[in-house]
Amino acid sequence: MSVDDRRNDGLSMTLLGTGDSPGVPVYGCACPACQRARACDARVRRHASAVVRADHGPLLIDAGLWDLRQRFPAGSLQHILLTHYHADHAQGLLELRWGQGLRIQVHGPADAQGLADLYRHPGVLDFQPAQTPFTPAILEGIEVTPVPLRHSKPSHGYLLRAGTDSSIVYLTDTCGLDDYATAFLADAKPAVLVVDCSHPPGESRGNHNDVDQALMLAERIAPGRTVLTHVGHALDCWLLDYAERLPRSVSVGRDGEIIQA
Amino acid sequence: MSVDDRRNDGLSMTLLGTGDSPGVPVYGCACPACQRARACDARVRRHASAVVRADHGPLLIDAGLWDLRQRFPAGSLQHILLTHYHADHAQGLLELRWGQGLRIQVHGPADAQGLADLYRHPGVLDFQPAQTPFTPAILEGIEVTPVPLRHSKPSHGYLLRAGTDSSIVYLTDTCGLDDYATAFLADAKPAVLVVDCSHPPGESRGNHNDVDQALMLAERIAPGRTVLTHVGHALDCWLLDYAERLPRSVSVGRDGEIIQA
Repeated sequence: MSVDDRRNDGLSMTLLGTGDSPGVPVYGCACPACQRARACDARVRRHASAVVRADHGPLLIDAGLWDLRQRFPAGSLQHILLTHYHADHAQGLLELRWGQGLRIQVHGPADAQGLADLYRHPGVLDFQPAQTPFTPAILEGIEVTPVPLRHSKPSHGYLLRAGTDSSIVYLTDTCGLDDYATAFLADAKPAVLVVDCSHPPGESRGNHNDVDQALMLAERIAPGRTVLTHVGHALDCWLLDYAERLPRSVSVGRDGEIIQA
Repeated sequence: MSVDDRRNDGLSMTLLGTGDSPGVPVYGCACPACQRARACDARVRRHASAVVRADHGPLLIDAGLWDLRQRFPAGSLQHILLTHYHADHAQGLLELRWGQGLRIQVHGPADAQGLADLYRHPGVLDFQPAQTPFTPAILEGIEVTPVPLRHSKPSHGYLLRAGTDSSIVYLTDTCGLDDYATAFLADAKPAVLVVDCSHPPGESRGNHNDVDQALMLAERIAPGRTVLTHVGHALDCWLLDYAERLPRSVSVGRDGEIIQA
């Protein structure tokens, strides 16, 4: 079945994790957000990652979770999209690779280093040639277009489309975005933008968006709605007091949340 | 309190994991050992690692498990002994490092590379100067003496002592052992030897012991008893048929097993 045969089908994205590298709760931290997460599993933030489906198999975006073998029974996962090779986005591959009779393609940006010895000992992982920015490919019935991000390691965000009307933009990890990429994504008129928002307003450290930067990106790309992800505990604390300052079209992602587009 | 004040106290070691890098069950494998492990949690083999105690805090040996934050509440773990920096022995540090208000010393062999970006972004981990082989240090009330192993990455096994009569030797990952190290360990007359035994007899691939090599090492070191660890699924299959071929002083470790010495 080609993508064109299914032009009315939509995309469904499940956020497997919405946290930054320490996650929430932070080990040893007693801030209100971390205490709340310890008391209530729904407030835990695992490493930012998602699974997206049209009507084919699952397409996993990022592999920072350790329990991928449990989440994806053997044979059910054939394609992984990596945004980049920082540990909190790729470390689950260290575990997933030692399978038998399986083959899982890994797609991502050019990164000569990768993570640890993954390239040297890929096991069942089949690392594909580096993606070319702005050049679409079809994976699991989804048109996937990589977009270069601004981060301390080569990183790609993704424009995901199924059919003509269903599109989601997924942008982690990034601090702002180049004008060309921003215009490209605005032109796509995405239904949903899922975007790195790690820090409270004014607290960006140059490698991730803070709230100001994420909202500015949302304004420029102008999606139907925006979901914040890669949220750190300091931002969760800020949201305890100021969540109502977010525009109505912007929500804060939660682990397990399902986004339809 | 010095070690001498407690010369009658013993060592207690809990095997947190007794598996090789793929663990048992292997993702996608339908061999009898893997099927048994899927049906019975007691037969699962996680990555080889252990926690040892005298009467102080815990001393963790290897950090291949991902759930160390859950196993060790914040502040309860202050020392980790690494045998080496292969992912299945060190990958849990990628997760453990992002704590707050904590400090965890990591002790191990000289390895300029380490694992991924751990040295560059250690977080709460405090990597100690490389150990000198055969030179003891006291950690958590235990006398720890590193012994060089034969493996594809710089690796140390450990002679662990508390008091005069209690000693355990822990040797992963290794394929055989140099004569000097073997004689040194035999001279220590350990109560228990916990030793890498990854493969069935005759199936060593030069980086881990098979059954023949592990038994030969046990014979030369002559501990009170021997526990096999770092067991792969092919060895578990072999044991289904031939476990009775092991000498009576040799047992096959199980995850969660407690060893008193």
